[in-house]
Amino acid sequence: MYKVKVYVTLRESVLDPQGSAVVHSLHSMNYKEVQEVRIGKYMELTIEKTSRDIDETVKELCEKLLANTVIEDYRYEVEEVVAQ
Amino acid sequence: MYKVKVYVTLRESVLDPQGSAVVHSLHSMNYKEVQEVRIGKYMELTIEKTSRDIDETVKELCEKLLANTVIEDYRYEVEEVVAQ
Repeated sequence: MYKVKVYVTLRESVLDPQGSAVVHSLHSMNYKEVQEVRIGKYMELTIEKTSRDIDETVKELCEKLLANTVIEDYRYEVEEVVAQ
Repeated sequence: MYKVKVYVTLRESVLDPQGSAVVHSLHSMNYKEVQEVRIGKYMELTIEKTSRDIDETVKELCEKLLANTVIEDYRYEVEEVVAQ
């Protein structure tokens, strides 16, 4: 079994209105030292072991469903879990 | 200047309907090996150095705005960036 952590972030060139709203809120709460916030998604997947390469599977999942690669980048970490 | 990465996840005991919907979609796309998906938030903050301890500041930001600690857990990583 694998535990896969996927991080999806907006590309550098894409505006992040949600992040700007958070910066705005933080400023109004007097945290003026916060300059920028970028908001992304974090996903933890539990995937059974199959005959397919796990990297290949995860890349497909990201490209097809989890990330919109036109505006988002993704990276992931795979950890193998030994069943108890 | 600091680059802070914040990960906000739903507590283990809290249902994640968004994650279940993703599992459902993946199954219908024939990725039957995916057993569970938990969806969280990932935030990158750029924070100026002040006289306050950065850990103290980040904890406050998380507790007050970024995470709902009733149903969510958070963790973070701080990286100091030397201005060029």
